Amino acid sequence: MHNFESVSLDKAYRLFNLGATTLVSAAHEGQSDVMPAAWACPLDLSPCKATVVVDKSHYTRQLIEKSGFFALLLPGAGIVRETLALGSMSRNDVDDKLTRSGAEFSNIEGYPMPFVQGSVACAVFRVLSEPHNESAYDLFIGECVAAWADPRVFTNGHWHFESAPEALRTLHYVAGGTFYAIGEKIEVA
Amino acid sequence: MHNFESVSLDKAYRLFNLGATTLVSAAHEGQSDVMPAAWACPLDLSPCKATVVVDKSHYTRQLIEKSGFFALLLPGAGIVRETLALGSMSRNDVDDKLTRSGAEFSNIEGYPMPFVQGSVACAVFRVLSEPHNESAYDLFIGECVAAWADPRVFTNGHWHFESAPEALRTLHYVAGGTFYAIGEKIEVA
Repeated sequence: MHNFESVSLDKAYRLFNLGATTLVSAAHEGQSDVMPAAWACPLDLSPCKATVVVDKSHYTRQLIEKSGFFALLLPGAGIVRETLALGSMSRNDVDDKLTRSGAEFSNIEGYPMPFVQGSVACAVFRVLSEPHNESAYDLFIGECVAAWADPRVFTNGHWHFESAPEALRTLHYVAGGTFYAIGEKIEVA
Repeated sequence: MHNFESVSLDKAYRLFNLGATTLVSAAHEGQSDVMPAAWACPLDLSPCKATVVVDKSHYTRQLIEKSGFFALLLPGAGIVRETLALGSMSRNDVDDKLTRSGAEFSNIEGYPMPFVQGSVACAVFRVLSEPHNESAYDLFIGECVAAWADPRVFTNGHWHFESAPEALRTLHYVAGGTFYAIGEKIEVA
């Protein structure tokens, strides 16, 4: 998260408004995992809340449940291959999944879950316990406690991809190995 | 929905995987409303479920609650102005909001809620009643009962914006009058 800038909690929802595919990062007692999730979405403005769907089969899920926290990262187009790799293996089967993914990891300031280099934003959420949603729908609700973004693409609550390298555009997953990058800005006066 | 093609219910989630901004359409006893919602997200694959956040202040909400159904449309970039207009007025204050928005409406085949011309996809959802989510989070869960897409941009479960007019690209809202259109396809082998 070198050179990232803090995002105020009342603007953090704008990181997720675009609907980009996320990486869900979690850690507990020295174990960590990161998995891609296209199904993440803002839920409230201030304080920012978000939902994310994490299936019971994912190793990440127990880390979320045990720690009570998760981070949502926004991978840039430059790490599309690593993003896919993080969803193609499970830590249930492959203990060194994170290493094998080819992604590079660093620390999220003040939190135990890993940051993935090449992501353009990061927000940490405290789980708001909703056992029925978690059990019936694999749906987790979190309240944002901290957020950061790469100032090359997001400053003062606004995205500006057009002035940054293509590798920093958000990814929007379809299926298989197919994504779209975010495109042109449209301003309605 | 002229020339739209049906989308199978096990592929309908792919309409929403991109995280595009939606239009929420609902009708009850001859009253109808359409509002933009960036906070819509897939929840399950098959049958396709989705979540959408609809605040208590919106006229659309009572139509969803009374009818038990809502549709999620994906407005194309060609109707960005109309999409914004549908979120700038409330039918609580402006009875002819739909007319004033400048959007053109037609029927969704077999359902009462309006379709907005210039949208590139449409899915109808039956509300799965979850009173706590609706009350505490303004979060509605729906199960898809029918879906369609414009074959110029979506066929056989896949998007192909690159072969279609720019006006058919999905919209991804930031704030104010600012959107991004979906951009370049990225295929990872």
